[in-house]
This record gives sequence, structure tokens and C-alpha cells, in this order.
Amino acid sequence: MNAPADLAHLTPEIALRDVPEALIAALKARFGANCSTAMAVRTQHGRDESSFDAPPPAAVVFAECTQDVADAVKLASDFSVPVIPFGVGSSLEGHLLAVQGGISIDLQRMNQVLSINADDLTVTVQPGVTRKQLNEEIKSTGLFFPIDPGADASIGGMTATRASGTNAVRYGTMRENVLGLEVVTASGDVIRTGTRAKKSSAGYDLTRLMVGSEGTLGVVTEITLRIYPLPEAVSAAICSFPSIEAAVRTTIQIIQLGVPIARVELIDVNAVRMVNAYAKLGLREEPMLLMEFHGSPAGVKEQAETVQEIASDHGGNAFEWASTPEERTRLWTARHNSYFAAVQSRPGCRVISTDTCVPISRLADCLLESVAETDASGIPYFLVGHVGDGNFHFGYLIDPNIPEERVKAEKLNHDLVSRALSLEGTCTGEHGVGLHKMDFLITEAGAGAVDMMRTIKRALDPKNIMNPGKIFSL
Amino acid sequence: MNAPADLAHLTPEIALRDVPEALIAALKARFGANCSTAMAVRTQHGRDESSFDAPPPAAVVFAECTQDVADAVKLASDFSVPVIPFGVGSSLEGHLLAVQGGISIDLQRMNQVLSINADDLTVTVQPGVTRKQLNEEIKSTGLFFPIDPGADASIGGMTATRASGTNAVRYGTMRENVLGLEVVTASGDVIRTGTRAKKSSAGYDLTRLMVGSEGTLGVVTEITLRIYPLPEAVSAAICSFPSIEAAVRTTIQIIQLGVPIARVELIDVNAVRMVNAYAKLGLREEPMLLMEFHGSPAGVKEQAETVQEIASDHGGNAFEWASTPEERTRLWTARHNSYFAAVQSRPGCRVISTDTCVPISRLADCLLESVAETDASGIPYFLVGHVGDGNFHFGYLIDPNIPEERVKAEKLNHDLVSRALSLEGTCTGEHGVGLHKMDFLITEAGAGAVDMMRTIKRALDPKNIMNPGKIFSL
Repeated sequence: MNAPADLAHLTPEIALRDVPEALIAALKARFGANCSTAMAVRTQHGRDESSFDAPPPAAVVFAECTQDVADAVKLASDFSVPVIPFGVGSSLEGHLLAVQGGISIDLQRMNQVLSINADDLTVTVQPGVTRKQLNEEIKSTGLFFPIDPGADASIGGMTATRASGTNAVRYGTMRENVLGLEVVTASGDVIRTGTRAKKSSAGYDLTRLMVGSEGTLGVVTEITLRIYPLPEAVSAAICSFPSIEAAVRTTIQIIQLGVPIARVELIDVNAVRMVNAYAKLGLREEPMLLMEFHGSPAGVKEQAETVQEIASDHGGNAFEWASTPEERTRLWTARHNSYFAAVQSRPGCRVISTDTCVPISRLADCLLESVAETDASGIPYFLVGHVGDGNFHFGYLIDPNIPEERVKAEKLNHDLVSRALSLEGTCTGEHGVGLHKMDFLITEAGAGAVDMMRTIKRALDPKNIMNPGKIFSL
Repeated sequence: MNAPADLAHLTPEIALRDVPEALIAALKARFGANCSTAMAVRTQHGRDESSFDAPPPAAVVFAECTQDVADAVKLASDFSVPVIPFGVGSSLEGHLLAVQGGISIDLQRMNQVLSINADDLTVTVQPGVTRKQLNEEIKSTGLFFPIDPGADASIGGMTATRASGTNAVRYGTMRENVLGLEVVTASGDVIRTGTRAKKSSAGYDLTRLMVGSEGTLGVVTEITLRIYPLPEAVSAAICSFPSIEAAVRTTIQIIQLGVPIARVELIDVNAVRMVNAYAKLGLREEPMLLMEFHGSPAGVKEQAETVQEIASDHGGNAFEWASTPEERTRLWTARHNSYFAAVQSRPGCRVISTDTCVPISRLADCLLESVAETDASGIPYFLVGHVGDGNFHFGYLIDPNIPEERVKAEKLNHDLVSRALSLEGTCTGEHGVGLHKMDFLITEAGAGAVDMMRTIKRALDPKNIMNPGKIFSL
């Protein structure tokens, strides 16, 4: 890994390609009012939740159906102009930035739940459906879609980044829960991958190749997902700990004992203070675990008892239980508001978020050393994590007007990633590579594996128009 | 789909490429006695459990380490000669046949369990380790590897075909259980994919691209797998049914109610008769389900009660329970011997095995119509299936000296696949495409998706030396 001084990823490489007037004219002819070149619209589509900036795309096409996407991609291909798919804009690593120029395809109007197969526990949706919308629309069937990355992300965006979040410890990630896709390829053709069968050995796993490809291999226009019966019983609890180490060691033991916990989230004392200030929650200002149990009433009781015993062995106290949806919502407010509470705690700041994930046995080593380093740095931060999966996020709150703070934060991130990789982990558990982790990806996967990715990209997108400049330089 | 008269896949296309003497000499110089050109060795490596024949490979290299594999591939690449990885030879679709000539790389000597990480529930193995060997070696840790395709296949082979089998209904397939790989690429370079972290969003999912690629993109030389705690309680049962429909409808209801059953296998009356004749089991000669439950003692009891009630609603009777390992082994003998019992039931026959998999709600439609068709055809057969996943196998027992029987069996398979695809299923749940299902793959995935696979193959293996002529024509 390069020395921290060579943090090339601090400033994304901007290499704008020409977007000819003839393309804009052709898009306007094809899409009418659904193609916008208004600066406000372009600006809105040229950024995400990352701390990077780039010039906005030259135009935004609002797609209403697969054919719209295919036609927009075909026109872009004719002019060798980049295409960036856009869901709700909640990605975190610069995925949506038009670093090589080009056009944005907004998929928010493709927001239909196309079919619900309750008997098979599958659902097929358009990419603009958000996870909350999906759960609202399937609620009456007694089923739910568990993947919850925090933001009310679009299913298309979650597919593109291989998202996961709080429930992944029990239900898996988008990798495990996408059964099949419809994809518009770089040539503007439409292909289908996968079937509704639960398993298949029919050729290369194009579904999983597309999941997590960050828009660089095609635009996903339809997604078939696994869904789950709403658990018979749900119980949630918060538990405070005398130290972050005690909370982490409790988590490790829960997982190693095989407790099928549905959620186990760490919230550090900084985050607790921030959400107390933001939402007046009156939480005890100590590190805490937020847990949820799903199952039969007897199963949930058994899990809860086991966990309470483990927590108590580590000095956990002040267990607060919530079994009604309203009580649970109150508890989860702390977790879901942590990002916004943090941003408000330092007005004008930007958040640099880390995303390492390590094997559970390495979690304490990875997390505790990084906490000590970050405390010593003086950079304000909060720490939350899907610790049951070995995944956690520091959010460094930097003042964008003080360049040294960014350098300091990036150095902390760099050291954290180095530590995670040395512990057989990954630089990104769920956010994706985008612009920010391209160097880390090479260190993690090796130049040979990244070359293989690049070779696939070149073969499937010879004009390099699909969200170029993300995951690896090209 | 073509008319059944055009069954091009009845006779695999043999298009032998030149294997220069200079390559054989170079292999002998590099590998000494570990490179064999003895006809007996070549013949043994030129076939699998499929009903196809092709000329044997020109030589067999017995690899003892990754470097051996890399060197063999590099030499083959220098001469543009095909390379076919060989595990234990248990594949079913002609995967191992040297239809374009070339050399075989035997991986059976790479049979070390390299590391066991009990705390993280992961294990790293060489490709020649078989699933039974792996379970023997990790038994003392209280952990097990659940994937059981029937044969004592090598982990490398199971990775290459995306295998699954009896436990997949609860534990998933190789797709879900391979965390990372070491792979020798077509150029003889060594890359690594994945990490030991439970999840990652670090670039393209090369792990899942390799899993199920049937040796066409590289040779897998190391596999990191998920393993599981041995369940606290295990209970198995067989239950006979008045009709195959009753057994199928029982299965559907078990799955739709979300019972976390570990195994639910259908054995039709033909298979029961065959195993009775073969192993003198004295089983009631009716269709039966063979089931296994894993969990806490209370959980297993709860599952068993639920299932018994469902079965009884469908006329299931003669429930026979087994809780000790010895009793369970006796019950599972019926399932595991069915293939050999069937072969013995018609001396000299060859088995053409089907492998469709459909969404669980479509299982009755798909299976029952095909049973009626097969009964009417007069071809001897047996039917077994991982019905909890919607996956089942007809084994047509054909006399290889009566060509019409093969045509008849292939027509039955063709009609079954057409039915499964019309019900949103797949032509292969777990065996892979190999030579046998190339036409079906095009119908299932569409020409566009197969073209995408072909484009990836051409990009990663420009000389087309990695197990060429499998999955798709090239």
C-alpha cells in the first residue's frame, strides 16, 4: 500500500469526455421533457453522499421503462458518451459523480412492484422502488424484504453496490437475495439473468457479476428478490456497556455461539451523545448494542436469554426491551439518526465514512486499535457498526475548509483499511469501491484480480461508457 | 426451443486440436513421473458419469501444488492446447470429456485441509479434498460442511459445477458457501478472489463468477468455505405416501410454512423397489419422503410435529423416526444407493439424468406431468429429488445398444426442460451445463445472456484453452 502521503484518492481524477450537442439534440428528440439540461437538475444528479465534487452530467434522462433506458444507452453508445444510472442518490463513495462527463439516467420513475409471488417468497421490482416502498407494498402478504442499509435506498442502487446493513447478519446481503435481473447492456441490448428457481447451475453467474458492479457493466432495469415471512415474534433490546471492548466481545460471543440474532448494532459513546443531543432520547451515555431477535415466541425468548447472559458476563447493564413496533421504532431511532445527528453536531462538516469488514474473530483487534488511533487524532468522529458481520463504520466529521483535517481523516481510514486487510478482511463491507477505494481494492484483491475485473469491463463495455472511472481506473 | 428431432446435444461435437509432441516432452521434462501418457490413465481421465464418449486427453499431469498447476497451464498456453481440470470424475454432464483434445490436470493429490478457523466458521482447502474427507478432518471441532451432492465429490469439482444436494434447502449451495478462491488463470497466473470476511462490496464478484464456470475460466487451486456448528439435535424420518402427488404437496406446504427443514428428499416407488432389491431394506413400496431436522432439541421436536401433521393431512403414514447416527445412516442408505441400485436393476444400462429446478409453487405441475409422460413412454426410470428446493432428477435407464431408447429419453428430458422453463425454472439445478445442456442454456438464458458469457470467456481465455466446448460452443 502506498504511503499515506500519496493519497491519490483524495482528489478523484476528472477527465471529461466530449458530450456532443448532437447527442443532446437526439435525446431531447427521443425523450422530450423527460430529458433535462437544467443546471439544477444536472447538479442534483452529479453528486451523492460522498465528500467529493465533480462537474455535473451534461443532461439527465428520466426513464419510465426499460425501452427508455435501452434507447438512452444506445444513443450514448453511438456518441461514446458515459452513462451514469441514478436511483435516489444515497451512495457514499462517489458512485454517481460524472468524473468523465456524460449523461445521468434517473430511474426513480421506474418504481413499480411488478409481481409478488408469496408462495415462492419472491418479488420482482423495477429499480426505482425503494426498500421502504417495497415493504409497504408487500406488508399485506405477511412478507418483508429485510435488507436495510439505513437510507431509504432504491433497490437498483442497492443491487449496484451489493448493499446490506442491519439485518444482514441473519438474512444475508444483496448477493444472497437477488435471484435474477433484467439488464440493459453497454450496447443497449436487454438481457435477463437468473430465474425464479431457488438455485441453478446454468452457466456463468451473471446475476452475481452484475450485483455490486456499480453500474459499470450495465443498467439494471428489473430485479427479482427473495422475501421472507414476517417473523412470528420480534423483540428488540438496547444494552449499555462499560467499554466499547465489552460491547465488541459480547458481539463476538453471540455470533460464535451461533445465536441466530437478526440485528446486532454497535453505537459508540460519541454517537450516543450526538443522537441524545439531536433527538432528546435520554440514552445512557455509554457504548451500546442494539439488538433484535426474530423467530417463534419460544425461539425469541431463548435467544434473548442467551444474549442477556453473555452481555451480563461482560458487564452489560441497563437492558431495555421493546416488543411493540412503537417501542422498537423508538430504540431504532438512535441507530437510524446517528448519521444526521453526527452531521448536526458539527455544522458545515462533511462525513468521511469507513467501511471495513473482518472475520468475527478479528473484530476486537481491528476495531479497538482503530478507536485508540482515532481518539488520539483529535478528529471528531462517531462509530456505528453491523458488528455481527464484523462490519463497522467510523464517520470522521471534517471541516471541508481545513484541508489538513481531510488528510488526517484519510490517513486514519488508510491505517484502518491496512489493519483490516492484514486481518483477512475487506476495505468495503457494503458501500462499494466507487472513487474512494480504488487504491484499496488493488491492495486487497491484488493487481491480477483487478486486471481480471478490468478485462471483463473492457470486453462487456468496449467504449467504456458505463459509469466509467469507478471501481478501477480505466 | 428446437423440435426434439434436432437434438444436437445427443452427440457432442468432437473437434480435436493438435497436441504437439513438443508440449508432451516439455510436460515430461517439468513433471517427470507426474506426467503420464499411459492409455489406462488417459482413458480414466477422459470420462465422467455422463453417458457420452470422446477420445481421451493426450496426457495427464498430477499436480501437487499451485505452482504445478500454473506451470502446466503456462505450457499448455504456449502451445494453445486445452486443459481440463479433474477431481474425482463424478460430474454428470460430460464436463471432463476432452472434446477438443488437450491435457488433463489431476488435482487429487492437492488434498490438504490448509486451515480451519473454527471461531469464524471458515475452512480453507485444496481442490482435491473430498467432502467426506473434509467432514472427517473437521469433526473434532464440532463443525461440519453441509453440502452433499451424493457422490463423494472433490471440493474443486463441486465449486466448478456450483453443486448443492440434500442439505441445500437449509444451508444453500456452493454459491452461498464459497467465500474465496485461489485460481490459476488461462495465462497461468495465480489470482485470489474474496476474503475471509463474511461480506464485501469490493469490486466484481470474481468468486461467484468462478463458482459454476466448469473449469472454463481457470483452475481453482484453493477454496475458502463456510462451515457450520454440528446441530445440537438431529432427527430423521421417512414417511410413505399413497401417491407421488401427496408427497409433493406435503413438501410444498412444509416449505411454504417456512419450516427450516434440513433435508427433504423425494424417492419414487421405482427407486424404492430398486433399493429394496439392491440393499434388502424392506421399505414399504410406495413413494416416500426422507426428511432431516436440525436444531435445538425443542426446535427439532417442533419442526417434526409440524411436518407430521402436514404429512398426515396428505395421507402420509408409516412415519419411521431415527435419532441415532446409526439409524439415520440406515434410512439414508435408501437415498444414497438409489443411483447404483438403479444401474443394477438393468444390467448394462446407462443413466441419463435430468436436473430441472422450479419455484416451489410450480413443483407439482412440473413433476407430476413429467411422471405421467415418462410412465407412458415405457422407458425404465427412477425419480429422486431435493424437492424442498424444487429440484428433482429423473434417471432414465437406457440400453446404449438401442439408439431409439436414447432418443426417447432425450425427448422426455427435452419436454421436461421445456416445462420447467415455462414455469420460470432452470434446466439445471446443480449438475451444470457441460456438453449436455448447451441448447437448453440458450433457451433458458437467451442468446444475449449466453453471448455475454461467451464474451467473458473470450476475454479471460483468448486462446480458448480452459475446458473448451463446455457450457456453450466456442
